[in-house]
Amino acid sequence: MNDKEIKREIGKKAVDDLVKNGMKLGLGTGSTAIEAIRRVGEKIKSGELKDIRVVPTSMQTEMECRSCNIPLWSLNDPDIKGKLDLTIDGADEVDPQMYLIKGGGGALLLEKIVAFFSKRYAIIVDSTKMVKTLGLTKPVPVEIIPSALYPVSQAVEELGASIMIRMGKQQAGPVITRHGNIILDIRFSGSFDPVEMEKKLKLIPGVVENGIFTIKVTDLFIGYEDGWVDYKNG
Amino acid sequence: MNDKEIKREIGKKAVDDLVKNGMKLGLGTGSTAIEAIRRVGEKIKSGELKDIRVVPTSMQTEMECRSCNIPLWSLNDPDIKGKLDLTIDGADEVDPQMYLIKGGGGALLLEKIVAFFSKRYAIIVDSTKMVKTLGLTKPVPVEIIPSALYPVSQAVEELGASIMIRMGKQQAGPVITRHGNIILDIRFSGSFDPVEMEKKLKLIPGVVENGIFTIKVTDLFIGYEDGWVDYKNG
Repeated sequence: MNDKEIKREIGKKAVDDLVKNGMKLGLGTGSTAIEAIRRVGEKIKSGELKDIRVVPTSMQTEMECRSCNIPLWSLNDPDIKGKLDLTIDGADEVDPQMYLIKGGGGALLLEKIVAFFSKRYAIIVDSTKMVKTLGLTKPVPVEIIPSALYPVSQAVEELGASIMIRMGKQQAGPVITRHGNIILDIRFSGSFDPVEMEKKLKLIPGVVENGIFTIKVTDLFIGYEDGWVDYKNG
Repeated sequence: MNDKEIKREIGKKAVDDLVKNGMKLGLGTGSTAIEAIRRVGEKIKSGELKDIRVVPTSMQTEMECRSCNIPLWSLNDPDIKGKLDLTIDGADEVDPQMYLIKGGGGALLLEKIVAFFSKRYAIIVDSTKMVKTLGLTKPVPVEIIPSALYPVSQAVEELGASIMIRMGKQQAGPVITRHGNIILDIRFSGSFDPVEMEKKLKLIPGVVENGIFTIKVTDLFIGYEDGWVDYKNG
């Protein structure tokens, strides 16, 4: 199977296994998450799924939901009681404890808010995203207030990381997030404790959010080249 | 002395004691901080102070600096090496450990970034701001991403606080900060550990910053009604 077909299988399996009528859903961002969105759209269209409401985590997700006729919702809806039933999202890296690096698509802030506000948090990835140790290949994205670039950079360097400002394509200068911030892609020279590092980064004044996710993953779907989708309970 | 005269004395003493030629300064926001700004402006005008550069913490500070002909600077200036020499700012409450509540003026985010990035951090207050326990009278401001209002509110309530969204005057709906966020003014029913609570609030996804400041205050100036300004070394 090619990449896109694998992602379609993973998205399909997660939605078929977990999404029930009446659910309030968070849906993630990226090329794997989009396959889950499309599957939800198909099942709404065919009448298999009813009364679904979706909180999107990005403009990409929102546009895809609109084109699939999926009813959109907001975390600030006065109807909200308790938490979202389920969020389904992709990840850039997943380690054996099911800790994640996310934010390659720049949507880490809303993705973390929605994950944090969900009863159940399902991650869907192809097997290339599985790693023994986070951050050795992919950088950790850190969303920061633009006017705090130098102070935050200095603090991040004191944590032992090097910094790249994420630059725009088709946009001059740094990528600007939906919330008007910029993103540093930071690299550590070795391994780090994800729980501690997530906190340390967030506690730097000027840091809005970071792409280390240690929120409990309840369901992990891993897609392989032959179309097999493995499932792990978190 | 009236309120304004007391504040003028405090601002004057802090600037006269601490500000030296060539310093890179952070200057705070609010009715007390503004007196420090004016004193810096007077001394630049008279030639007593030279080569001062100021990082403002708000539009109010910036406008006041411009009207006093104080050279403005940015934390993102490529010239920046090391940290700011000194920041002078006011506070809403100061406890015996010199922990602070700040953000009544809505500038807490830049105020904390600048404080964090200064070698020396001086706080100037009149004596009404001194309290035994933080947060019993004044609420703690929490700057949050607007689309995370409900999730953050729920997390804050789980910490034992009640919430008021700060509403605008001359502006419909909530106050919008310089960074496009909104502010929750939260109240605890009793005392809390400032160091722990500052961290807990910041670690909630969707929280950008909060008004508990436990950064080390190096110099505290307290103004009294008769014009006396007390000094404490932190």
